[in-house]
Amino acid sequence: MTEAEFIAALRRLPLHKGALGLGDDAARLGAFVVTTDTLVEGVHFLPDDPAGDVAWKLVAVSLSDLAGKGAVPEGVLLNYPLSKGGWDRAFLAGLNACLSVFNCPLIGGDTVSLPQGAPRVLTVTAFGRDAVAPARAGAQAGDGLWVTGTIGDAGAGLSVARSGNGPEALLAAYRRPRPRLAEGRVLAPLAHAMMDVSDGLLIDAWRMAVASGLAVTIALDAVPLSTAYRNFVGDDPLPAVTAGDDYQLLCALPPDQRPTGHATCIGTFAPGTGLSLTLHGAPVPLPQRLGFEHRA
Amino acid sequence: MTEAEFIAALRRLPLHKGALGLGDDAARLGAFVVTTDTLVEGVHFLPDDPAGDVAWKLVAVSLSDLAGKGAVPEGVLLNYPLSKGGWDRAFLAGLNACLSVFNCPLIGGDTVSLPQGAPRVLTVTAFGRDAVAPARAGAQAGDGLWVTGTIGDAGAGLSVARSGNGPEALLAAYRRPRPRLAEGRVLAPLAHAMMDVSDGLLIDAWRMAVASGLAVTIALDAVPLSTAYRNFVGDDPLPAVTAGDDYQLLCALPPDQRPTGHATCIGTFAPGTGLSLTLHGAPVPLPQRLGFEHRA
Repeated sequence: MTEAEFIAALRRLPLHKGALGLGDDAARLGAFVVTTDTLVEGVHFLPDDPAGDVAWKLVAVSLSDLAGKGAVPEGVLLNYPLSKGGWDRAFLAGLNACLSVFNCPLIGGDTVSLPQGAPRVLTVTAFGRDAVAPARAGAQAGDGLWVTGTIGDAGAGLSVARSGNGPEALLAAYRRPRPRLAEGRVLAPLAHAMMDVSDGLLIDAWRMAVASGLAVTIALDAVPLSTAYRNFVGDDPLPAVTAGDDYQLLCALPPDQRPTGHATCIGTFAPGTGLSLTLHGAPVPLPQRLGFEHRA
Repeated sequence: MTEAEFIAALRRLPLHKGALGLGDDAARLGAFVVTTDTLVEGVHFLPDDPAGDVAWKLVAVSLSDLAGKGAVPEGVLLNYPLSKGGWDRAFLAGLNACLSVFNCPLIGGDTVSLPQGAPRVLTVTAFGRDAVAPARAGAQAGDGLWVTGTIGDAGAGLSVARSGNGPEALLAAYRRPRPRLAEGRVLAPLAHAMMDVSDGLLIDAWRMAVASGLAVTIALDAVPLSTAYRNFVGDDPLPAVTAGDDYQLLCALPPDQRPTGHATCIGTFAPGTGLSLTLHGAPVPLPQRLGFEHRA
């Protein structure tokens, strides 16, 4: 089944009220928001990615969902497949670094053995408190579409990891993403809708528009690109906006909110449906692939 | 690394106060207890186990940890690898059955793709409320050791699954274990210590004794065996007490508590250390293997 078919089937099961119809990146559980992410070797990370970076990313991906809710990390659970040799020790060092940097303690977890040669499958479940928790479905016509940081660095970093050649800054964006927890705390109280950008700017912006029942137009020339990206990839924003793993925040803000120190305005929501792109004011056709989608 | 080495290393990371030093089957998170379990194809279930039974067991294993805390299920998160064909649909049917029977709604989750041919790795995280939450470390000298239901049926059921031949009741005990939630609610308020039996009666009883700083003696002849077990395996309790997957509850009760309608007294705690066995009053040597332990 595809991810969409499977989730549609899950919606016919008994659902908790905090599941929010399985339409959001995080569920509600009492005073907490909760999110869970699984990373698979060969799918979400490369077999030769350093174990410490895999640990960092595993935690950071979940904390990014908490950032999207304007929440403060409460702690994480870890589901871990034991292995031989130094991988486990290097993983623990990266885990320690990420938990320490983002002030997020370990609550518990489970360890298992995998059959010989099986790809590693790792899960982190993260809990956040004090969430403001704007949904992705709350955008209103006339809202601006805003994004934190720069886009496309992790996608370019994946190329660097694959080729073994390129700027360290891009590789770091891919391997050690920094969840936008502080920006999330600032933006969440202002936002009509918010989510993190994990599968690609275009597909995630389109998802926010669909969930909100609106059309969205993105000015490609407004999308913030880093100097490292421009030097390595060039000035074309298309590879950036269709690549995954940014872990920036995307939000819909009313026109009177312009938090330019924390984010960049890259588009607008309007009545209607669909995603449109412009470049220096002129319409641009959509690329065939908007971002990353899980498929069996 | 072994499971014990890895968990010892995790204890040196920043820990949440609800982690209880990673020494318990469930953590505390606000008003909830939380537990997470990962099942691996080829390790915890057989590749040709029916998908619906795998779903049932995945949830039941976590609910059993909640039962050990005397908790009421609040809901579960599911981390699921999508596949082709009917497996996903059969899984969903079994998931629906288990969630419905145990009145446990779905809160959220994550779906991923696995590389072609990789063994399935599935995780459920379960939340319980109104926990009484006796620890496994609270047994006192003079307490009786009590166990719910019968022991060894799932272990015998695994043989039935492997050979394709044997009683349906044993196969069902292996494939569709029934977490002892009701018994947990009755026993938890009476118990000095409680845990579920997942890796084998002897190893889990030994763990309770070690955690409590006591010795424990088990009367093998008192261990409750089902008629189906006796007919299929015989009257020898040793295969039963060293097999995993029972998902019964084990508890330490003060001598004045005798809830014989809900559990069976099979032993006693005493000052000292170690696990001893008797059969009709005579000492019996320990088997070499006490139960199931994860190793890389």
